[in-house]
Amino acid sequence: MKKSTPVPYPSDDLLLSSSRVREASVSLGQCSNEQRQQALTAMADALTSHAKSIIEANLEDLARSELTGLNKSLLARLRLDDEKLTLAIEGVRQVAALPDPIGLRQLHRELADNLYLQRITVPLGVLGVIFESRPDAVIQIASLAIRSGNGAILKGGSEAKLTNEAIVIALKEGLSTTDVKPESISLLTTREESLSLLRLDGIVDLIIPRGSNELVRYIQDNTRIPVLGHADGICHLYIDSEVDLSQALAISIDSKCQYPAACNSVETLLLHKDIAASFLEIAIPAYRKLNVVLLGDDLSRSYGISTKAEEEDWSTEYLDLKLSVKVVSNLDEALAHIRRYGSRHTDAIASRNKQTAQKFLRSVDSSGVYHNCSTRFADGFRYGFGAEVGISTQTLPPRGPVGLDGLVTYRYYLEGDGHLAADFASGLSSFSHKDF
Amino acid sequence: MKKSTPVPYPSDDLLLSSSRVREASVSLGQCSNEQRQQALTAMADALTSHAKSIIEANLEDLARSELTGLNKSLLARLRLDDEKLTLAIEGVRQVAALPDPIGLRQLHRELADNLYLQRITVPLGVLGVIFESRPDAVIQIASLAIRSGNGAILKGGSEAKLTNEAIVIALKEGLSTTDVKPESISLLTTREESLSLLRLDGIVDLIIPRGSNELVRYIQDNTRIPVLGHADGICHLYIDSEVDLSQALAISIDSKCQYPAACNSVETLLLHKDIAASFLEIAIPAYRKLNVVLLGDDLSRSYGISTKAEEEDWSTEYLDLKLSVKVVSNLDEALAHIRRYGSRHTDAIASRNKQTAQKFLRSVDSSGVYHNCSTRFADGFRYGFGAEVGISTQTLPPRGPVGLDGLVTYRYYLEGDGHLAADFASGLSSFSHKDF
Repeated sequence: MKKSTPVPYPSDDLLLSSSRVREASVSLGQCSNEQRQQALTAMADALTSHAKSIIEANLEDLARSELTGLNKSLLARLRLDDEKLTLAIEGVRQVAALPDPIGLRQLHRELADNLYLQRITVPLGVLGVIFESRPDAVIQIASLAIRSGNGAILKGGSEAKLTNEAIVIALKEGLSTTDVKPESISLLTTREESLSLLRLDGIVDLIIPRGSNELVRYIQDNTRIPVLGHADGICHLYIDSEVDLSQALAISIDSKCQYPAACNSVETLLLHKDIAASFLEIAIPAYRKLNVVLLGDDLSRSYGISTKAEEEDWSTEYLDLKLSVKVVSNLDEALAHIRRYGSRHTDAIASRNKQTAQKFLRSVDSSGVYHNCSTRFADGFRYGFGAEVGISTQTLPPRGPVGLDGLVTYRYYLEGDGHLAADFASGLSSFSHKDF
Repeated sequence: MKKSTPVPYPSDDLLLSSSRVREASVSLGQCSNEQRQQALTAMADALTSHAKSIIEANLEDLARSELTGLNKSLLARLRLDDEKLTLAIEGVRQVAALPDPIGLRQLHRELADNLYLQRITVPLGVLGVIFESRPDAVIQIASLAIRSGNGAILKGGSEAKLTNEAIVIALKEGLSTTDVKPESISLLTTREESLSLLRLDGIVDLIIPRGSNELVRYIQDNTRIPVLGHADGICHLYIDSEVDLSQALAISIDSKCQYPAACNSVETLLLHKDIAASFLEIAIPAYRKLNVVLLGDDLSRSYGISTKAEEEDWSTEYLDLKLSVKVVSNLDEALAHIRRYGSRHTDAIASRNKQTAQKFLRSVDSSGVYHNCSTRFADGFRYGFGAEVGISTQTLPPRGPVGLDGLVTYRYYLEGDGHLAADFASGLSSFSHKDF
């Protein structure tokens, strides 16, 4: 998706179909916890009974995509076999069992005699979800949306077209037996519709992109609708002078190698000058064994790294077995580097000195700041959220790994008995502001 | 500010000065509650000791603006006399006394043995504030920013240039005696700088516009930085068939007349057909006495309203003694009207029937949904927040009246002892996910 691709205006068809989702979402937003849980169970059941047609559709998508030369890793993501489908259906049942994010009272206050204020969580409304390749994402996102009381307009990749259609037919059939309207979910099928989704402000409340950084960046640049997602994960690990070197090396390896294509894997090591030589003495052979290419600044190359890190390396998310290394004089230099090149995702320090660690944790303004552990823990499941909607690198909440509660907002309910602002302005009435 | 006005790229000077604010905000973000409170006290003291020069500067601004023909209401907003200044300084001391929004632990969880997750509120970073005319806004916003640990880049109207400069000199002098760096606050003085502020993503975390709807809309359309504000406040009052007519009339009058220029004043009355005639029989003379112009649909004109409401009236924020009136067959028609024309600000129902009221409160997706009280209560002070940063009509939080807690975000702190994700993937370690 090129930066210059213009966003088309929505067609009448799209406006109509998305307005139907909005309509359906209003009644969905009023469904009880039990009604929404039943809907998810019905969705899971329908997927099970449609498993054969879904997998057949997927085989067709695979065959066509092989012919058109889709690359191997995308083909692997596209494949939805029995095992993956079973896992995805299991996921729907798990989402059904998560605590309800809707209807939580965040504030309950008497403003004055008989004038009561409540702040209660409510669904956002309609989610617009754009994803590439992986058809199991349709299942996951649809279940998260319904669980949180939101309608969803879904747009998958054209390579997964038949699979996505078969899945959505099953989901709607499941919903048709429940109190949640099947119109709560809509699948867009053309590329043009996908793009004009970005112009549906007023109908879509949040865009969730699932795909390449390029896709996410394009979306962020081309919509006024809030986007939940991150374009870059440039994570750092700073290794302090006072440190358990072998623990630091283990953290550094896990942060890079446990799953290098993840946004929470580390891209740059910052080494305190006092331990740089001894750390690299053990790290260089260890990384060589793991096929990790190290790129270093001048000093770290004097300690044995052979490839030079260029200026652009410090702001590159490799998503690969590559790691840039820089020697710094002290914590402040490390902090300045992170401030300049980081993406406010997740940054870690390895140190035995609690004060140094505290200074690091206080000074780095990323959504995750870690001490003596791998950056790979930045994940909704690992945080215990039960689901992950996405990881956000924006500053405002929700940031970091976002669970179901990232799909809700709140509403202020004020109930009185003829209360007038003029009476408070005149002094006839007065505010009590007592919390319950 | 025309819609077509292009946003200039920031000058080197602006990049330098705003980076200094960002730098200063990092250390401000680490100041304790007491340090920030002391800073506000010092700001208040310095304003008091500079009162003479501030008021003199304001007199110069007023004289110049009168010559250039600034209109009366803007001149009134521009005027900063002894009384207004004293009130503004009192406001700074009140903000100092508000509960600290920083450092609140929102989550504290053991993820596994010796692996602890905390979610703690932190400042956003740097606020960009653009406002028109009222120089006391500089004082208020600067105090809210420092209280919440945020740096602030301020841009006031050119008509208030000398006043704003005198105020900021005083504020910086006050800060210079404290642990908060004077560089935490910066005042932009040219119109060009004001606009290029919109391009400072990465430096500015939140834009707060204070001014006309036109200003807010322009800003929302021209920046990728999140904007805290609302362009429209199209509030409705629905008067049900089962209602105390005189209470409903009092609410309707307060909602329109208590301060018609406010965003939370009502613009449209929706009348259930069964009470429309009897309500208008008492409402028309009451509104006439208050010089309120009523504009009606066909049915309500048949009950005595003389002016016709055109299609565009339903989506117009009059900010004036004007009120559009429509007769609806039932609650559903009222809900559909609000969904179509409302701005998700604040909407109210007057009804004696609790079930009808509950359905209204559940179905309207505005930030404020009210039963039997005036829409004019939609306000941070009236909600008991102690301060109001703004009112947001976006769907995502923060929405509605926003207090100090709208100026903070959170960070996840994870502290371990060499924890690796690979050990959890292999089953060597497992998650406990126990909340403290």
